[in-house]
Amino acid sequence: MSSILLSLVVIYLAAKLGGELCTRLKLPPVLGELIGGVVIGVSALHLLGFSGTEGSVITDLLGATAHLSPESLNSLFQNQSEVIANLAELGVIILLFEIGLESDLKELLRVGSQATLVAVVGVIVPFVLGTIGLMSIFGIPAIPAIFAGAALTAKSIGITAKVLSELGQLQSKEGQIIIGAAVMDDILGIIVLAVVASLAKTGKIELSHIFYLIISAAVFLIGAILLGRFLNPLFVALIDRMQTRGQLLISALVIAFVLSVLASLIQLEAILGAFAAGLILAETDKREALSLQVKPISDMLVPIFFVIIGARTDLSVLNPFLPENREGLVIAAFLLVVAILGKVVTGLSVFGQPGINRWAIGVGMIPRGEVGLVFAAFGSASGILPRSLNAAIIVMVIFTTFLAPPLLRVAFGQSKSVSKAVEQLETY
Amino acid sequence: MSSILLSLVVIYLAAKLGGELCTRLKLPPVLGELIGGVVIGVSALHLLGFSGTEGSVITDLLGATAHLSPESLNSLFQNQSEVIANLAELGVIILLFEIGLESDLKELLRVGSQATLVAVVGVIVPFVLGTIGLMSIFGIPAIPAIFAGAALTAKSIGITAKVLSELGQLQSKEGQIIIGAAVMDDILGIIVLAVVASLAKTGKIELSHIFYLIISAAVFLIGAILLGRFLNPLFVALIDRMQTRGQLLISALVIAFVLSVLASLIQLEAILGAFAAGLILAETDKREALSLQVKPISDMLVPIFFVIIGARTDLSVLNPFLPENREGLVIAAFLLVVAILGKVVTGLSVFGQPGINRWAIGVGMIPRGEVGLVFAAFGSASGILPRSLNAAIIVMVIFTTFLAPPLLRVAFGQSKSVSKAVEQLETY
Repeated sequence: MSSILLSLVVIYLAAKLGGELCTRLKLPPVLGELIGGVVIGVSALHLLGFSGTEGSVITDLLGATAHLSPESLNSLFQNQSEVIANLAELGVIILLFEIGLESDLKELLRVGSQATLVAVVGVIVPFVLGTIGLMSIFGIPAIPAIFAGAALTAKSIGITAKVLSELGQLQSKEGQIIIGAAVMDDILGIIVLAVVASLAKTGKIELSHIFYLIISAAVFLIGAILLGRFLNPLFVALIDRMQTRGQLLISALVIAFVLSVLASLIQLEAILGAFAAGLILAETDKREALSLQVKPISDMLVPIFFVIIGARTDLSVLNPFLPENREGLVIAAFLLVVAILGKVVTGLSVFGQPGINRWAIGVGMIPRGEVGLVFAAFGSASGILPRSLNAAIIVMVIFTTFLAPPLLRVAFGQSKSVSKAVEQLETY
Repeated sequence: MSSILLSLVVIYLAAKLGGELCTRLKLPPVLGELIGGVVIGVSALHLLGFSGTEGSVITDLLGATAHLSPESLNSLFQNQSEVIANLAELGVIILLFEIGLESDLKELLRVGSQATLVAVVGVIVPFVLGTIGLMSIFGIPAIPAIFAGAALTAKSIGITAKVLSELGQLQSKEGQIIIGAAVMDDILGIIVLAVVASLAKTGKIELSHIFYLIISAAVFLIGAILLGRFLNPLFVALIDRMQTRGQLLISALVIAFVLSVLASLIQLEAILGAFAAGLILAETDKREALSLQVKPISDMLVPIFFVIIGARTDLSVLNPFLPENREGLVIAAFLLVVAILGKVVTGLSVFGQPGINRWAIGVGMIPRGEVGLVFAAFGSASGILPRSLNAAIIVMVIFTTFLAPPLLRVAFGQSKSVSKAVEQLETY
C-alpha cells in the first residue's frame, strides 16, 4: 500500500505544480497535469513505472528501505502499476460521467442546426484528412491511421468557454455557435472513440462491422436517454426515501457503472456508458446536488488519469537530434497542421449569417484538451498505436491547446477593431 | 475493468440494501454494510472472491460471456480482487482521516480527566481479560490472543452519539463523559492497533519492542499535532494562493498520504498517519470546507471496506450444527461476555460524582462499530488470526452493536424513572 500512496503523492504534486504553473500562464490546468506527468514519467524522472518498463524510482526506493528480494520487488511494482492504472481508468469514467452531467440536452437542441453543422464538419474534415494523409503520405496501416484521425476530431469545451468568457464573447452569436458545436462535438467524439476503439480491438475493418458499431453507439445513447426520461421519476422517488449517508452519490455511481458495463458488453467503450448516465441524471432535479458531490471525486481521480497519460508518453521518440526520429516529428507536424486547418474550415460552413466572424468560429474549434487525451490514452493502452504516433498525438494536443487562446484573442480582437472601424465610418 | 465495475456495483447494492434495512430497524447503517458483505461473500452467495478463494460468480460470468481461457480468467480474477482490496484499503485510510478531521482536540481536553479515566479503564480491562482468558482457557497462542484482546478495546462513537441524541441525553453529565471517553478511546484504540499489528508482523513479543512501539506511536501522534500547529498557517496560506480546482482536497490528501507512508516506515500502521493528518487539519479554519469535500469520497470508498470485511468472513466456521465448530462458538460467546463486562465496569471508575448513572455510562461504552471492524480486517489480512477467531470477533462486533441501543434506552429510562420518583418524593 505504501508504494501506491507514494505514487499518488507524486502524481498529485506533479498535477498541482503543473496545473498552477499553467494557470498563471493563462493556459488550461489540464495541460499542466499532462506536462507534469511527462516530467515524472518515462521521458524524464522515471518516478512512475508501467507494465513494459522496468521498475520505478518509487518502488526501488521502498524496496531498498524494506530490504526486499528482486522477486517481491517486482511483484510490488506490478501491483502498484496495476492499481494506479485502474484508478486512472476509474478517473476517466468519472470524468465522462461529469461531462455528461454538465451537458445540457435542452440547451443543445436550442442552438440547433447551425452548431450541429459546424460540429459535423469539424469531425469529418480532420478525420478524413488525417486518416488518408497518414495512410497515403506516411504509409501507416489503416487501423492506427484511423485511430490518429479520430483523435483529431474531438475538441475541448472547457478551454474555449474560459477564453470566450474572458473576452466577454460567451453570449455573442459566434460564442453561442462555438459552445453549441463543442457540446455536440463531445457527443460525436465519444461515439467516434467507441467505434474506433472497438475496431482496434477486433482488428477487422469491414463496412458492415463499422455500420453495426455506429448504429449501436447511437442506439445505446438515444435509448439510454429515452429510458432515462421514463425511469428518472422512479430514481428521484427512491433517493428521497433512502435515509443512509451518500444515497444520491452511490445510486448515481451504480447507474454509471452498470451502463459502463453494458456498453462494454455490446463491444463499445465503458466511457460511453458513463457519459450516457451523466446525460440521463442531468435531467433530474438532483443534478445540482449530484454535481456538488461528484466534484471532489473527480478532483481526486481525474488528475491521476491525465498525469498517467503524460507519464506513459515517451517523448524521447521525438528527440530531433536523432535521425531515426525525423519521421515521427514530420508526422507530429502533419497532425498539427491538419488539426488546425480541419477545424478552421468549419467556420466556412456557417450559412445565412452575413457579417458573422467565420474566422473566430473556426479558431474557437481548435483546442483539443480532455477528449483528445482520452483518445491518446486508449490508443496507447490498446497497443495499436506505434510509440512515435502516440507521442505525435500528445504533441498535437499540447500545441493546439497552447495556440488556441492567443489565436482566439487575435481573431476576436481583429473582429472588434474591424467592427469599431465600421462604427466609426457610420458615425461620419 | 468491467469486472471491477461490476464488483463495485454488487458492493454498493449490498451496502445500501443492508444499510437501509438496518436504519429502518434503528440499527447503525455500518452494521448493514457488514451484513450485506456477509451475504454476497464467501459465507453465502460467492459474488465476490479474494486471494485464497477460487474465483467468484462475477468473474465466472464475465469469463463465460467473453469466452476466456481458464488462465486469462484466473488473471482477471487476481487483478479484480487485488484492485478491490486496494480500494478498500484506501477506504479505511479515508475513514480514519475523516474520523481525525471530526475529532475536536480542544473539546477533548475540556472533558478532561473523568473521561480519560473511563477510556483508559475501558481499554485495559477488556484487553487484559480477553487476552489472558483466550490464552489460559482456550490455549490460543500469544499473538492471536493479543490481537483478539485488542479488538475488544475499541469503541464506536457514532452509534452511541446517535442513540444519546435520540434520548436527549447528549448534553447530560453521563452523555458528556461517554462522548469524551469515546473520542479518547478512538485515539487509544488506534495506538493499540498500530502496536499490535506491528507485533503481529514481526512475530516477536519482547518487552523492549512493545515499549518502542508504544513510545513511537505516541511520539508520532503528538509530534504530528505539534508540528501541525506550527505548519498550519503555511498550509492555509498556500491553499489560498492556489487557483486550480480541488486545491484544498488534493493538498489535504497529500498530507494524509505522506503521514501514512511515514507511519508505515517507522513500523506503525498507515491509518495512524491518516488519523494524525485529520487531527492536524481539523485545527485549521479550512476544516468545514474540507469535511464537505471528504464526505463524498468517504461515501464512495468506505462502504467498500466494510462490505469487504463481511464478504471475507467465513461465518460457516460458526455453524452450530457441526461438532468441530463448538469451540469457535464458545470463543465467540466468551468474547461477547468480556466485551460487555469489560466496558460496563468502566462506569465504576467515575469518581466524585454522587448520584451519577454509572450503569448508563458503562452501557454507553459497549458498542464496537467501525474501529472494532478495522481490527478484524487487519487481523484477517495479516493471516495471524485463525478463521474461527476472526469470525468470533466479527460476531462480537455485530452483537455488541445490536445490543447497545436497546440496553442504553433501558439504562437511561431506569435512571429517568428513578429521578422522577425522587422528584415526586421531594414535592411531597
